Amino acid sequence: MKLEPREIVDQILPHRIPALDLAEAYAPANIALCKYWGKRNEALKLPLTGSLSISLAELGTRMRCRVAETDGLEINGETQAPDSKAFRRLFSFLDLFREAGTCFQIQSTNTIPMAAGLASSASAFASAVNTLNLLYGWELSDRSRSILSRIGSGSASRSICPGFVEWFCGEQADGMDSYAEAMDVSWPEFRVGILRLSDAEKAVSSGVGMQRTMDTSVLYQSWPAQVERDLPVLREAIREKDFACLGKTAERKAMAVQATMSAAWPPILYWKPESVVTLQGVHRLRADGVEVYATMDAGPNVKLLFLEQNRDEVQSAFPDLQVVQPFGTTCQD
Amino acid sequence: MKLEPREIVDQILPHRIPALDLAEAYAPANIALCKYWGKRNEALKLPLTGSLSISLAELGTRMRCRVAETDGLEINGETQAPDSKAFRRLFSFLDLFREAGTCFQIQSTNTIPMAAGLASSASAFASAVNTLNLLYGWELSDRSRSILSRIGSGSASRSICPGFVEWFCGEQADGMDSYAEAMDVSWPEFRVGILRLSDAEKAVSSGVGMQRTMDTSVLYQSWPAQVERDLPVLREAIREKDFACLGKTAERKAMAVQATMSAAWPPILYWKPESVVTLQGVHRLRADGVEVYATMDAGPNVKLLFLEQNRDEVQSAFPDLQVVQPFGTTCQD
Repeated sequence: MKLEPREIVDQILPHRIPALDLAEAYAPANIALCKYWGKRNEALKLPLTGSLSISLAELGTRMRCRVAETDGLEINGETQAPDSKAFRRLFSFLDLFREAGTCFQIQSTNTIPMAAGLASSASAFASAVNTLNLLYGWELSDRSRSILSRIGSGSASRSICPGFVEWFCGEQADGMDSYAEAMDVSWPEFRVGILRLSDAEKAVSSGVGMQRTMDTSVLYQSWPAQVERDLPVLREAIREKDFACLGKTAERKAMAVQATMSAAWPPILYWKPESVVTLQGVHRLRADGVEVYATMDAGPNVKLLFLEQNRDEVQSAFPDLQVVQPFGTTCQD
Repeated sequence: MKLEPREIVDQILPHRIPALDLAEAYAPANIALCKYWGKRNEALKLPLTGSLSISLAELGTRMRCRVAETDGLEINGETQAPDSKAFRRLFSFLDLFREAGTCFQIQSTNTIPMAAGLASSASAFASAVNTLNLLYGWELSDRSRSILSRIGSGSASRSICPGFVEWFCGEQADGMDSYAEAMDVSWPEFRVGILRLSDAEKAVSSGVGMQRTMDTSVLYQSWPAQVERDLPVLREAIREKDFACLGKTAERKAMAVQATMSAAWPPILYWKPESVVTLQGVHRLRADGVEVYATMDAGPNVKLLFLEQNRDEVQSAFPDLQVVQPFGTTCQD
């Protein structure tokens, strides 16, 4: 039995009649601490392993959707052509939710660069689901919205929640047990540093890179076992606020993902020259006793993990750093 | 029973009385097609797996050794202090061969940069053994010289021979079956391109990098099995002159070695920003149909593998390329 995405959506949606003419909602981007890398089902974006992330608070996507006579898409104020990749990908996702004949004018505003390994598709699809949820008046649970977002872009399942978020692998063929949930941990001192090394669109999309890695990389074979071993370590480090353990495990997982890509054929190397400089800068800072860790994704950008107490040292080593406070402002600010 | 290097050397040398006052010999550097990465015995440099390389003809080390009143070392015309790393490493190796009281004035000339992942220690130790072989009049076989060179620097075992060279892992505790041998293949069109991205000495030596990787990298676990699978593929590709298979296998093995390092802790990243630019340039050339492959070692430099027929395209993409003809000049030159 092949499950179609629209059938899954049917099981979740109470109806397909818009309750409003206009709605607007937001979803944060998220940075993987243990990345989603490998699918067991392409159409439903069902993963081979669980994954864990931190949501980026005010960095994400705000989407505004108006019921209209024709479809239209504006991203950051720029009109997208109907044959553009962004238009086609978003509207074929929206088609899962609407009746034929319902059209949308969408305005999407990203506070995070697109398609550069900074998880813009995660916040885009999650914000689309949040927006439709308001527009149609569905009042869906976090879990349902996570499942629906996942069908748009796997890691979007995690952008439904704030803070530390775990996406469960699940076992069911219909994916109803593959959703994300926020961990009940607040860590006000936790910081994510964004270093925007490139806004250029990637030569190889995440989806293509993931598939090629699964198909051709001998190093991918050990990935699922690695995740099974390290997810509990990460979970425990977050609960215990053991930052050194969290940072080290996340950095090692990020490097292991890059390794699986480099062993693919043709090899996938998302790095820019600045990626090397940045990683070596992080290694040096750490050798000097500053607790800072690096993560990377399917892109050239490097994200830093550190605590408020080391903010000055990290910021002076990386003057262009954009510092995100995933748990909002603290008393000191 | 712990085997001391000097006992092994004793089994090989017929005597320790110099036959000449002065001798001079050469050994080429070599580029791994399947790298030596992991030891089973530190003192004797016994490897965990076999390995395979191409010797670099005129790029290597010429060593001149004169029996003298005191020890002295000049490298590329520069006198090295007795407490320098190069001096200490070379003379503690030479101590294995000489009687107490015998002193050497050594002049070493490298045509390849030192300690930048361009295998200068391999040619240095192999040329030392070749020089002593003449100085003492030992008339040692290739196999014996390979074993002796290996004790100085593992991959030096391969620098005894020209062309494609295989170093057998061996099983014996004394390492008498762990030596290198030239493959009986001449491939006049085969080219190695050297891109000297950095002559700077490495922050982490190969030996330290190898040990840290063995001790801490989860990705190292599958390395021996990968080599066991890929060495026969490389051997066959060389015999059949299947360049695409040779190049692809060598590039994948090189990337897999880098991957084992990146998964070590602290992570090892020998790359320079130019390493990324160069690798991506190779990927692009290949996407354009030019058969060129990259290899890397424990260092930032990138080495290219290609055939004479693609020399112009490769050279115009990489104007600084130094082209080596491992099998000498061909009729066309």
